[in-house]
This record gives sequence, structure tokens and C-alpha cells, in this order.
Amino acid sequence: MGYNLRLTISCPDRRGLISAVSSFVAMHDGNILSADQYVSEGERFFMRLEIEGEGFGLERDEFDGAFAPLARRHGMDWHASYTDAPKRMAILVSRYDHCLMDLLWRWDAGELDADIPLVVSNHPDLAPRAEAYGIPFHHLPVTQETKAEQEAKVLELLSGHDVDVVVLARYMQILGPGFVAAYPDRIVNIHHSFLPAFVGADPYRRVHERGVKSIGATAHYVTEELDAGPIIHQDVAHVTHRATVEDLVRLGREVERSVLARAVRWHLEDRILVDGARTVVFE
Amino acid sequence: MGYNLRLTISCPDRRGLISAVSSFVAMHDGNILSADQYVSEGERFFMRLEIEGEGFGLERDEFDGAFAPLARRHGMDWHASYTDAPKRMAILVSRYDHCLMDLLWRWDAGELDADIPLVVSNHPDLAPRAEAYGIPFHHLPVTQETKAEQEAKVLELLSGHDVDVVVLARYMQILGPGFVAAYPDRIVNIHHSFLPAFVGADPYRRVHERGVKSIGATAHYVTEELDAGPIIHQDVAHVTHRATVEDLVRLGREVERSVLARAVRWHLEDRILVDGARTVVFE
Amino acid sequence: MGYNLRLTISCPDRRGLISAVSSFVAMHDGNILSADQYVSEGERFFMRLEIEGEGFGLERDEFDGAFAPLARRHGMDWHASYTDAPKRMAILVSRYDHCLMDLLWRWDAGELDADIPLVVSNHPDLAPRAEAYGIPFHHLPVTQETKAEQEAKVLELLSGHDVDVVVLARYMQILGPGFVAAYPDRIVNIHHSFLPAFVGADPYRRVHERGVKSIGATAHYVTEELDAGPIIHQDVAHVTHRATVEDLVRLGREVERSVLARAVRWHLEDRILVDGARTVVFE
Amino acid sequence: MGYNLRLTISCPDRRGLISAVSSFVAMHDGNILSADQYVSEGERFFMRLEIEGEGFGLERDEFDGAFAPLARRHGMDWHASYTDAPKRMAILVSRYDHCLMDLLWRWDAGELDADIPLVVSNHPDLAPRAEAYGIPFHHLPVTQETKAEQEAKVLELLSGHDVDVVVLARYMQILGPGFVAAYPDRIVNIHHSFLPAFVGADPYRRVHERGVKSIGATAHYVTEELDAGPIIHQDVAHVTHRATVEDLVRLGREVERSVLARAVRWHLEDRILVDGARTVVFE
Repeated sequence: MGYNLRLTISCPDRRGLISAVSSFVAMHDGNILSADQYVSEGERFFMRLEIEGEGFGLERDEFDGAFAPLARRHGMDWHASYTDAPKRMAILVSRYDHCLMDLLWRWDAGELDADIPLVVSNHPDLAPRAEAYGIPFHHLPVTQETKAEQEAKVLELLSGHDVDVVVLARYMQILGPGFVAAYPDRIVNIHHSFLPAFVGADPYRRVHERGVKSIGATAHYVTEELDAGPIIHQDVAHVTHRATVEDLVRLGREVERSVLARAVRWHLEDRILVDGARTVVFE
Repeated sequence: MGYNLRLTISCPDRRGLISAVSSFVAMHDGNILSADQYVSEGERFFMRLEIEGEGFGLERDEFDGAFAPLARRHGMDWHASYTDAPKRMAILVSRYDHCLMDLLWRWDAGELDADIPLVVSNHPDLAPRAEAYGIPFHHLPVTQETKAEQEAKVLELLSGHDVDVVVLARYMQILGPGFVAAYPDRIVNIHHSFLPAFVGADPYRRVHERGVKSIGATAHYVTEELDAGPIIHQDVAHVTHRATVEDLVRLGREVERSVLARAVRWHLEDRILVDGARTVVFE
Repeated sequence: MGYNLRLTISCPDRRGLISAVSSFVAMHDGNILSADQYVSEGERFFMRLEIEGEGFGLERDEFDGAFAPLARRHGMDWHASYTDAPKRMAILVSRYDHCLMDLLWRWDAGELDADIPLVVSNHPDLAPRAEAYGIPFHHLPVTQETKAEQEAKVLELLSGHDVDVVVLARYMQILGPGFVAAYPDRIVNIHHSFLPAFVGADPYRRVHERGVKSIGATAHYVTEELDAGPIIHQDVAHVTHRATVEDLVRLGREVERSVLARAVRWHLEDRILVDGARTVVFE
Repeated sequence: MGYNLRLTISCPDRRGLISAVSSFVAMHDGNILSADQYVSEGERFFMRLEIEGEGFGLERDEFDGAFAPLARRHGMDWHASYTDAPKRMAILVSRYDHCLMDLLWRWDAGELDADIPLVVSNHPDLAPRAEAYGIPFHHLPVTQETKAEQEAKVLELLSGHDVDVVVLARYMQILGPGFVAAYPDRIVNIHHSFLPAFVGADPYRRVHERGVKSIGATAHYVTEELDAGPIIHQDVAHVTHRATVEDLVRLGREVERSVLARAVRWHLEDRILVDGARTVVFE
């Protein structure tokens, strides 16, 4: 029955913000389970609070009205979410199944607190993977000519399912600006290189040719510019001269899975705040 | 000219602690530069604040008196320190120089904010190392018979130099209970294994015999029980079957240096709070 | 159609061994694709060769007879295998599915070159997991009273399926000496700690109590003594004071999956030679 | 008194090469201590042998003549070196001392088997660092106008000291093509980013602006194109949003030191063979 309230805030920095927010919570008998703050070099203040629902004096239909005046006074961007109302996550895939499988397995194991109303793909191949977990799979093929039309259909599906966050689990299509604008800071992509190295296509082959001694993966929010959105998480694995392109692909899959899963979990738990081209991650 | 106040607090958890502390700061016009909190499973509350000195309404001779009533009310253990009064750190060594050299180099480079009034050793070998950095070196040899007497002399030296923290940078002597009691949670040791594996002497040889595929190092506070104090930081490096004991020693030196330096830096910046057998590290 | 021959050798070290073996291959027009050697501190020689089948002058029914005299002269333990005859691997599990799922996914993706004739479990829970990949699942429950009897049945199953290697993918039973002796250096276990730390049950809880700052996993061959067999691979993940036991379990699953998969792949590709209590791994 | 011979070979791949070389060694009663081979995707064969000097039938003035016919027959590029004649290494630095200090400390500790006849710098600052280890320090200032002239002087110094390998330990000058051509595959540079990301100047600032979640360092051989030479080794350290540029610099120093030291050690032990734009590293 228990739930927690998660409150994220960003606003211009000034004295007294922690006091103002924590006193607001205390005034309503709230128990702060965790609190994180950060002030960026651009003098912006970021905060994340997790407040125990039990005993908190504000019901969820009361919170917004009660908090709004304080928020307005300090110019806060803020968001409240409740742990008993998990986010609704759509997964977009193409043909590679490793990221999808890993997300579904973790979701099933309780690591990812989300509802997954649908998986969407431009290929039919992975339908059985999604359906094995009881998740509806939508096949929306795409060609260069039908791109705009297909994106419109995907958006309609997402909107019809009240989707909060879109995960590109190796979805091999570049999203148009309209799509990106519909989910600002809410589309998580996994790029199979250590960005900003190897932006664009086929990084493993280029890693091999350049003789790089590590391969990486980067999870980031999607923005209009390709592979240039705010980075959420990244990791690398060491490789030797013996690694063939196939070995790089195999090792890369492992890094991709783990990096994407972590980024998705952080997003679902409201741990990521965007600060211009950067992210603040309250782990 | 500028300085910051660092305030660390631990006390039984209850509602309103963050509000109480941050409002106290706000009431005195303090600007909180960073704040970290944690509630342990034992329901103990830990907090670390860094407050800008400039503009703060409490002079340092006023702070303690002003904060004491609040601290008493909540049963707080607390400590205030000022960044313009760095801790006084003694380094104890034997014959291995790598940890000493690394600490001195980092100190000289400005990575470690401390005064180092002296280096103490039971061997004369490393005197030139310390003196090259202008630090007095004290040679106090020890035998099984003179152990108590030598420890007393070391303690006297430390006390005579107003030492706040003692770093055992591969000091190959087990400290007696009296020594340990004189600096509770203020003696940082580097153990050359991934504790709790390989407690005690000669871990590299034992790592090699066991065929372990990684070597580690652990920084911890010294307590009466050997190698059992609260762990501050630890790391490992992968090794293969080709590694000889000499290779393990070489690789181990690198891990030791880096793990110890990080632990010392955290201690100097008041980032470590002890929670029974564990540490809370506000990185 | 193509296949390679993998030849592993261990014997007392002496001059001329590489020459003797490589000249034997050259004499029969063999193309050596890769060769690794190592001489242990105990003066034992280890070698692994991969020879292209195409063009090699010895058919597989001829190789053993042709190589035997050379092997005898040098006192070699040796083994030849062929890449078109993958090993037959049985997986034993209990209730945790993460290692099983990861192995099956990798096997399906072509990362693990093996036949998997069966999965055996002392619980019925994971039957659908195995069957989704078309692999027969055998449920053989066990109690303290029926342990010997159950092990006999498992051994009978394995032997009836010509199993070459047994993987304990979080099989929560300690195998009896008879079982272990039936598959010497061919039972791969994953232990959920950084051995030799936390031998035995419930390491995550003990990690948490001790306040260790990393969790690990270790893949090793099973020997009679619990968790003391030759270590194949191990890895760790860093954790902070914030990690609950549940977080340790979640992070541990990730390390376990990856460590076990790597060990299994190396075993299947004949990359591991046992040297007493240690392993030689020709990555 | 003992010494070993290290033999490195590269040539077009063909059958029988390992046999030919190892039989040559065996014919002269040589004991092979270690042997590594690799065949690149470009069908080039690479080999490194370490042969015990004691008992080997070829004196060092005989080896070249004896091996040449075999080498010629197979079109081998090859090089023989002797462990009792360590390479002569020059270190070039500017003002940052961390890489220099680390190399000198490791050299003094016996980790780096080299003679160091001189340190050269375009600034006078680090003279005491080198001289503390008894190494002559040469100050050769440089301006845009005197660049060619200064490089000529440096080359003259290196040549006058019979230098085999040049280490750029944060030498903040771009070397001209003539300099690079004088020491092909023998100039080791440390670049303070994870190449190919952040080629060129001031990577830490650019890492910070881009919000990258790791910083790296790359050791590579210097070629005419800036930061584009064959990569020897690279590593990264994770960072969070809290890291300032100063923190990145501090963490970066640690990665730089460790990556450069490893690359230098491998070079000194003839473990690196260049394969076009890539390196083969026989660790």
C-alpha cells in the first residue's frame, strides 16, 4: 500500500532553497527518505527528494496546489511522481534483440519499475520476444518514402497508450524533429560507441580499423542533432589486437545492455535532470 | 581569503532534520554549497554540509555556541571544520616508498589539502624522500622488546605536532590498542588485498598460490582487530596466469597508491562518516 | 564445411617443445591459426594450438595415432577437439533464472558454441525458460534424505546425454564427491562473491554487514572442497554505502552473468588448462 | 650475469613459420621462455620470442648472421634485442610534472628497464625533478620562430646520446615531420583523452562542456598526423556531473600516468609491433 513521492526541482540558485523545500515538507509532516542537491557552474540549482507517502500531510491531489506558490516564487521547474504509479515505457527496436531481451528480463525480475504497454518495431522479427513477456508488439515497417507517415503512426500509438518514456533499444532509424519534440528529454537511446567518438553508423568497424583498444556504449537523451543529446551514462570494455569485428560486436552487446539498463532505471526513478547539454544524475 | 565551513552530523533519524539544519543555516544567511544526507538501515541519519564562509552570519567562534542547542535537541554527534585550517596529517612508513611518494607528490600538486608536519618511520631509508619535500623525518626504530616504548614516542611526537590524522602508508607494524584508541577513526591504513580476502601478512604470495585472477587494495580505518576496521575504499586490477609474484607486487603498488590517495583525500575533506563497522562516504 | 582442430597440451617443460609440436603440424601441412604457450613456475609447459582443418594432412581418425608417439616421448597430457563437433553442455539450476537466461540468450545468439541437450533442476520453476529455447527440462527434486539418490539420477541423465561439461548456473546444492569426480575440471560453477572472500552461503548479506565497497563474482571449476576449485575468472562492481542488500543482489546478478558467460565460453573453446590449484587461460 | 634474447618478427603469413623459427632456436639449443604469435586480418604474421641466453648456441655477434637467411626466405622484418642492454630512453616534458615523476619513480623502483641519459624540456621548471634522480636536464626553449632550430637541437642531443626511444611525457609541442621521421614507431606520446574523441587541445574543458561521463587517456606512437598514430593503450575513469574541470584534470592525471607507464614498459620490453594503423601488443 505504501508509496513514496519523488520530487525533482531545478531553478536559479539562491540562498535558502534547501531550507525552503525541506521546511515545506516538514511543515506537512513529511519524512524525507533521500535528498540530493547540486548547483551547476551555471548557477542552477537541482534537487531530488524522495518523501514517504505514509504520514505525509498532503494527498496527491493536494500536493501540486500546495507546492505551486513556493515553486513560483523561486522560478522552479518541478515534477512530482508517485512510486505506485510507475511510468509507461514504450520500447522501439529493429532486429537486434539483445537490448530488448535484457530490458524485458530485468523488468520481469523487478529491476525496472515501469508499465510496458507496447513494443514497436520496423521489422517483424522480434514479435515473439515481446509476446513471450505478454507485451503487445506492433510492426510498423518504414521506407525512405514512408518515413514521415510511419513516424506519425508510431506517435499515435505512443500517445494512444499514454506513454511517458520511449526507449530506443537499438532502433536503427533516425527520428525526425517532430518525433523528438514530442518527447523532450524522454527518449533514451543507446549508441554503440563511446561518444563523442564514432558518432554515426557502423562504429565497430571503425573502432577496428582505427585500432582502438576499448569499445564503449553511451546512453543519451535524443535531441535533434544525431548522437549529440545529453549523455546519461557510458562505459567501455578493453579489447586487444586479437579482437575481430565480430568480437567487438559481441563485447559491445554486453556493454550496451548494461549501459542502457542503468540509464533506463535512472530515468524511471526520476534520477536524471537535464542541464542544457549535460545531465545531472542523482544515483 | 575565502573559506568554507564543513559540517558533519550523525544522529538518530527523525522527521524534519534536514529542515532544521538547513533552516538554521538560512537563518544565519548561509549559502549551502553542497549537502548530502543518508539514513542507514539502523535508522541513523548522516549529513554533510559545505557552507560558504563569505556572507555567513556566524563567525567561527560563534558557530559552536549557536549550533549546540539544536545539536543537543536531536542528539547529534557533529563536527565543524574550516577549509582555511587544513588538517594536520602525519605519515607513518617503513621501507616501501610508493605510497609515501604518491601522497607527497599529490600534496605538492595541491590534490591533498593538509599540513604535513612530519613523517615517522621505523627505518631510516626514506628520510631523503620526505626531506626532498621539506618535511621533517623522524626515525624511531622498533623491536619486539621496544614496541611499547616506541609507540609511546611516536604518540608523543604526533601529539607534540597537533596531528589530526595518521596515515599508515605501508607502515609494517601492528599498532597497539593504546595507539589506536588515541586516534579513533582517524588512522587510515592501506592493506594490500581486497579485504576481507587475505587478511594479514604476505597477501601477494597467497593470491598467487590461490590463482586469484585479480589483486586488490583496501583503505580502512584502523581498529583494534587486525584489518577489520571500517572500509573506506577498495579497488582491484585484473591479472592473468602469467603474473608472477613480482608482477602482482608491481600492479598492487599501483592499486595501493590510488586507493590510499582517494581515502586520504576524502578524510581530509570530511567526506567520511563512520557508521559502526561501515563507512558513509559522501563523495 | 570448414572446421579447425584445437589441440591442448601440458607436460614437463624442456627445450624444443614448441619446435617439436609446430614441426609436427608443419610436416602434415597444417596451418596454425593461433598458438599460445606458457611455462608455469612449477616448470610445466602448457600449449594451445588452433589448426585449420582444410589442407591439414591428418584426418581426424588419423590424428591421434600420428600424434601419440610425440606425446608419449614428452609425457604430454593432451586433448584434441574439432570445432564442428561442439561440446555437449548441461546446465543445472535451482530457482534464480538470471544466469540460465543469459547463457541461453548468448547460446541462441551464437556466442556459445555448444549443444545443450538438457537443463536439470531441483525445482520445477524454470521449465518454461528452458523450453522456450527448445531445450528439455528435467525436474529432479532433492531433500537431505534423497541427496545421494538424486545425484545418481542426475549423473545418469548426464551420462545418457553424453554430456561433456556441466554448468552450475546458481544451482544451490553442494555436489557430492562422487559427482565431482565424474567430471573433473569439467564442472563450472559461479560463486556470488569475490573468492576467496565470502566462501559459503549468503555472501551478499555478509558483504553488506562488513561494509565492503565492491561486490564480486567468481567462476571456478568445482572440486571436493567447497568454493576452493581453480578460479577461471572473476570480476567486481563498486558499491557505495547507499546499496541495500537488494541492490547488492541486483548488481551481483549482472556481475555473475557476465563472469559465468565468459568462463563457459572459454571452456567451450578449450582455452582453459588446469595447473594444480590454478588455471591457465589462453584468452 | 644472465640475459635473454628478445626476437620480434613480422612477415607475410604462410604455413610453417612457427615451426621454422622455433626449430631454428631448437637447433641451436635455445630455451624459449615465452612465445607469442598473431596473424592479422591482412594476413600478416607477428611473433615475439624470449630466449634464454644461457645455453643458447649463438653468441650475440653470431645471431644476426645465422638468422638472416631464414628471415630473408620469408621476407621478415625482424629485430633482436638483449635484456642486459636496456634501451636508451629520452623523456621530453614541458611544465606538467606528473607523467615525468611517475616514470622516474617507476624507473627507480625497477619497473622500467631502461637507461635514461637525459630529460629535455622547453621550460626550465622541471630541472630539479630530473636532477633529483641524477638525470641530466636540458632546457631548450622554443618559440614559433625558433621551432625548426630547436627541434634540430633536440634531435642532435638525442642522437648524441644514442637514444632508442623518445617519450613525450606531456610535451606540449607538436613535433615536425622531420623529427617524427627520425624515430619511426619509437616516439611514445600520452594524449589526455580517449582517442579518437577529443583530438587536439584542451580536451578536459571540452569533456566538461559535452557532459561526457568518463575521461580517458591514450598512449600512442607519434606519426605525422596529430593524435592519429597507432594506439598502444588507453583507459578511462568514470566521472559524475559533480566533476569540475579541475576534478577532470586531477582524475585525468591519474589515468595519464598509468596509461603512459604501461605503454613505455611494453615498448621497452619489445612487446609492441606496429601493424599499419594498429598495434599488436604481446602483453
